[in-house]
Amino acid sequence: MTVITEANKAKAKDLTAKLTLDEKIAIVHAAGLFRSGGAERLGIPSLKMDDGPMGVRAELHNDNWMPLYNTRDYVTYLPSGSAVASTWNRELAKKTGEVLGEEARGRGKDVILGPSINIKRSPLCGRNFEYMSEDPVLTAAQGVAYIKGVQESDVAACAKHYAVNSQETDRLDVDETVSERALRELYLPAFEAAVRDGGVLSVMGAYNLVNGEQCCESRKLLDDILRDEYGFDGFVVSDWSAVKRTKESAEVGLDVEMSVTPNFDEYYFAQPLKKAVEAGEVKESDVDKKVVRVLSVMDALHMLGDARKTRKTGSYATLDHAAKALDVARESIVLLKNDGGLLPLDEHAMTRLLVIGANADRIHSNGGGSAVIKALHEVSPLLGLNGALGGNVEIEYVLGYDAKQVNQDESWQEESLENSKGSDTQDEEHAKALRDEAVAKAREYAAAGDPVLFIGGLDHEHDLEGRDRTDMRLPYGQDKLIEALLDAAPNTILAFVAGSPVEMPWVDKAKAIVWNWYAGCESGIALAEVLLGRVNPSGHLPETFPVALADEPAHRIGTFGLKGHVDYKEDIYVGYRYFDTKQVPVLFPFGHGLSYTSFEYSDMTVRRVDDEIRVSFAVRNAGERAGKTVAQVYLGLEGTGEDRPAKELKGFAKVALEAGESRQVEVAMPAAKALRYWSNASGAYALAPQAKVYVGESVEDIRLSGRVA
Amino acid sequence: MTVITEANKAKAKDLTAKLTLDEKIAIVHAAGLFRSGGAERLGIPSLKMDDGPMGVRAELHNDNWMPLYNTRDYVTYLPSGSAVASTWNRELAKKTGEVLGEEARGRGKDVILGPSINIKRSPLCGRNFEYMSEDPVLTAAQGVAYIKGVQESDVAACAKHYAVNSQETDRLDVDETVSERALRELYLPAFEAAVRDGGVLSVMGAYNLVNGEQCCESRKLLDDILRDEYGFDGFVVSDWSAVKRTKESAEVGLDVEMSVTPNFDEYYFAQPLKKAVEAGEVKESDVDKKVVRVLSVMDALHMLGDARKTRKTGSYATLDHAAKALDVARESIVLLKNDGGLLPLDEHAMTRLLVIGANADRIHSNGGGSAVIKALHEVSPLLGLNGALGGNVEIEYVLGYDAKQVNQDESWQEESLENSKGSDTQDEEHAKALRDEAVAKAREYAAAGDPVLFIGGLDHEHDLEGRDRTDMRLPYGQDKLIEALLDAAPNTILAFVAGSPVEMPWVDKAKAIVWNWYAGCESGIALAEVLLGRVNPSGHLPETFPVALADEPAHRIGTFGLKGHVDYKEDIYVGYRYFDTKQVPVLFPFGHGLSYTSFEYSDMTVRRVDDEIRVSFAVRNAGERAGKTVAQVYLGLEGTGEDRPAKELKGFAKVALEAGESRQVEVAMPAAKALRYWSNASGAYALAPQAKVYVGESVEDIRLSGRVA
Repeated sequence: MTVITEANKAKAKDLTAKLTLDEKIAIVHAAGLFRSGGAERLGIPSLKMDDGPMGVRAELHNDNWMPLYNTRDYVTYLPSGSAVASTWNRELAKKTGEVLGEEARGRGKDVILGPSINIKRSPLCGRNFEYMSEDPVLTAAQGVAYIKGVQESDVAACAKHYAVNSQETDRLDVDETVSERALRELYLPAFEAAVRDGGVLSVMGAYNLVNGEQCCESRKLLDDILRDEYGFDGFVVSDWSAVKRTKESAEVGLDVEMSVTPNFDEYYFAQPLKKAVEAGEVKESDVDKKVVRVLSVMDALHMLGDARKTRKTGSYATLDHAAKALDVARESIVLLKNDGGLLPLDEHAMTRLLVIGANADRIHSNGGGSAVIKALHEVSPLLGLNGALGGNVEIEYVLGYDAKQVNQDESWQEESLENSKGSDTQDEEHAKALRDEAVAKAREYAAAGDPVLFIGGLDHEHDLEGRDRTDMRLPYGQDKLIEALLDAAPNTILAFVAGSPVEMPWVDKAKAIVWNWYAGCESGIALAEVLLGRVNPSGHLPETFPVALADEPAHRIGTFGLKGHVDYKEDIYVGYRYFDTKQVPVLFPFGHGLSYTSFEYSDMTVRRVDDEIRVSFAVRNAGERAGKTVAQVYLGLEGTGEDRPAKELKGFAKVALEAGESRQVEVAMPAAKALRYWSNASGAYALAPQAKVYVGESVEDIRLSGRVA
Repeated sequence: MTVITEANKAKAKDLTAKLTLDEKIAIVHAAGLFRSGGAERLGIPSLKMDDGPMGVRAELHNDNWMPLYNTRDYVTYLPSGSAVASTWNRELAKKTGEVLGEEARGRGKDVILGPSINIKRSPLCGRNFEYMSEDPVLTAAQGVAYIKGVQESDVAACAKHYAVNSQETDRLDVDETVSERALRELYLPAFEAAVRDGGVLSVMGAYNLVNGEQCCESRKLLDDILRDEYGFDGFVVSDWSAVKRTKESAEVGLDVEMSVTPNFDEYYFAQPLKKAVEAGEVKESDVDKKVVRVLSVMDALHMLGDARKTRKTGSYATLDHAAKALDVARESIVLLKNDGGLLPLDEHAMTRLLVIGANADRIHSNGGGSAVIKALHEVSPLLGLNGALGGNVEIEYVLGYDAKQVNQDESWQEESLENSKGSDTQDEEHAKALRDEAVAKAREYAAAGDPVLFIGGLDHEHDLEGRDRTDMRLPYGQDKLIEALLDAAPNTILAFVAGSPVEMPWVDKAKAIVWNWYAGCESGIALAEVLLGRVNPSGHLPETFPVALADEPAHRIGTFGLKGHVDYKEDIYVGYRYFDTKQVPVLFPFGHGLSYTSFEYSDMTVRRVDDEIRVSFAVRNAGERAGKTVAQVYLGLEGTGEDRPAKELKGFAKVALEAGESRQVEVAMPAAKALRYWSNASGAYALAPQAKVYVGESVEDIRLSGRVA
């Protein structure tokens, strides 16, 4: 782990003392769309940053958003944050970070703008596919591992977006009213862990306001909490255009201003800042602090002086990186339902397979907003299935529905919903023809006993930066098609590629449902391997799948996706903290994920040893094949005198077991973390005196319970 | 190795006896552009064939040449035949075949239309990049290994194009006059080996005529030599449109007619053949023979009846296949020149690198004719270099010259030279500007002691099916640019990506020259690894690089690329057989290839044991790093009373040695092969009574010599 040492800071201070005001100003604002300025005279280079969390973005011109169009910026397409979280495997999160760090370094970048660790407050947030979870402990665990991985390559990770950037609607101006308790228990802990446990070297200030304060002007968020409380020594970079005033951002710990326009000299931290300093409106010592932080990170990354010779060499677009992306993808896929053991498909008994659905024949690396990348390759599900089965199984593909694609690169910033909405209603006759064709085929296959596989879901017209979804339904008339398919061919297997949950009105009819996040360049291969049983699925949901949008806490009270002002009235009751506590039925609970084998739990003990709570239990693979489970440890805090969620995730372990194998597993948690809560009464953190302990395979599937006191 | 057994033949005969004439007719001609007809009534499927030698071609419509445009036919792009030959490594040739066979099976194909094993008679032949060598022994060795690899997957290889298809000009109609000696010693032996040693299951009849006979009508080629002499039991498929008459092809061993038009019922082997049989002009028993051969192959491939359940499952577009393509690419690159040990580049000493040339930033999988494929990915040299060096070395890229690209897919059948010729002369001002920019940059880098790398060569506008080159010069004004670069920056490293030799008028000035064939999806990575010394180059030229086109035997006497009729007057004196025998200086001799280490040879013994000639010698790695050499064994046949080449390649061994390591190597050759020659005097094969034996690292770099008697 690269961390900032006292030596880094001392060198940064020495250098800063030698800089002119102009040089300092250059260092704290953009000199290109993805780089800050340097000071050549003293060997201080530009700091090169790049999107984003799923791979290093294509090279753009320094001063406009057009790509350079060459062959040198193809990269490895990595699984999305949702997919990484869905593995519940810290090693795979670290591996993802390692690949991203090596690729960023390989591409000559100093800072990679990820991970995205905002909490998923609503399933509609357009950027949810980048984010990890509705839960801060899972987000923190995977985020920390990812950050450590990135920073092994002398590249800074950038934890974003600080803070409470949980919707895209009106994101530049919306003011989020959040209770101190929700802030401290839900929206900040992943950032706290990124700093304290991950040693993250940079943090991105968000666009939005929190409780009436601009994130990039907030002394509370940037100075009091991030620096004083968490001890953050790195730099804070603004989201692109998130600085809105000079003096207000200059006086707090916002260190580097980036934006989307090429008039770099006119940035708030450019000439206006210089003038403000010269006019005595901003203290030069405040600018110095920023420069010291930037230079400290640079020195920690071996960017200054002779240290440059020891800087690590990166690499990108390699087979090794693709193989690691495949490892992650394999464990990210969630088997949601598998009645009657319909899956895995028996590849040796099959002679043909009917595949229906636009997402079977589609890639997703080319969309999504700033997470877009120029993938060296991406295997679609159809290619993955053909590649795995090819030759002896004839795969017939019919579209089933028409998923209109528009050019993502050019449209994502426009917030225009027209393109995606139009396709649902227009040309219903065309839709009916496609549906009838697919249903007739499915009926024919079902009659012959041959398998039918539907691969639908969402795409980056819906999982998209800058725009929230307006409902939670499947687009393009997929629900109607699925209903008809399940009537015609009741054993139809349903697979979804998507970045956010969807309603499943036909769920009771469906026997087998597989969920595949945007899972990187080898996504289609991983999906094929899971469907065919070559890989035993072990992904577990990092977020609740509600029955209907109206059930969601934020939507129930009508406070998501508004312009201007959003009140987080649901407080800490987000996701399973709401559904589980209020006993509202869900489609699939947080933590849910099936396997082709089954696991039995027994023999739980809970001990307090030193400052740790240690939960120990036995897990046995009771089935016929090797598999991995996610043993989740929840606590129900008691004796606080305040309203608390019934359960809160506090720890987890991914456990690999051969068929019949049994193992004792221990999940150890610092008591100060596990029992911590924000007391409304005292306006401070407190420790619960006692708690229930639950171990299970989801928040609802609790296998063992006990107590800690 | 899949071979045709007596049981296969018996089953084929039984089945044939049950077929109606219509069904037999269906089996011997196309029912689609890439499949023959089947007989559903008896469970006989279509035989699905596909281009080509460098990967399985994209899926086209059954009856037109438009692609299907989906994501399911992306494949692994494999190194070209030239690259495979250039490794001089039989295991890598087999590995290439294995990948191709698995991919073909994965794509549901029964026959893959490769390897291309015609002899390179002239460097201008447009399809030379697909072909292996000017030498029949090297072609046979690599071709046989490749065929065995392919056929491990229950897929038939197809040795093509039988025979003497050594030019593209007028290829549909040209008549090649070839002496029996040249036929027997140069143009047929690789086919003989494909049958006898490789067990190839299919052979493709060429477009051209040989000595006045259509290849697809030649009793001599198809019946007397291929079947009676070599013992070929598989089927012969015509090149697409190579059958030109019904009766004449029906009466000889041409078994399946394929063509380029969708009027399948009008093919010579369709309704016209049926009518000819019904009219008594063609015997039905001749049709039966064809059907039996096709069905024998089908049965050998487990395509019939219950055997289908045992047919192997393929796979394609996998990381494993790409990794194997990289293994081949690594050993295919030839270090032609390295004065003063300029290479490898010291990646730790470099801070920046100037790269010049269009082929640095270009991929080649998307062109070439029938060898075109839809690559899942292809790493350009610039991407490979950036990926390897990225981060700590700044790579600056300037074009240097303008290589106009036209859409290859649509143009390659048109034989129009206009597109490529125009670019040399038009817009000389633009060319000068590009050149001046590159030269100025090179001068600046050279002055600072920073490395300059030129990456030029050819592309599939020049290495192209259906069209021969008209000269051997580098296109796009590259010679002028290279001269200027070598003047401005004398240490400029020259790398070429190309499928055929080029003249190098500036060769004496150049210090380091690296040759990279079209080497598959990982080509750019392999090139970077060689340039940086991460891989020690071990490719050796499979063909002579002449000083000038006029030196080439066929061109010296003006008998290449003519329309209508070409007389192979040079007889067996093709390639090094000419240059070495007549002592004509060459640019780089056959077999040439340098290493970053050096090898010493000693202690040769030549023994005759049983029917073998065994040449044994010691090789020592005399340098500082591990490497591989290609020890080549040539014989100079003596006592024949006829004119003979000074040396002929008879065997070789690729030898891997650690630094300082020494090893005894034995190359064993059947005497009946090694001493065999075609006697003009007797009109038959004869054995030379004695021979000189040479061991060396090229035909010119002989390290040891002795005798066999």
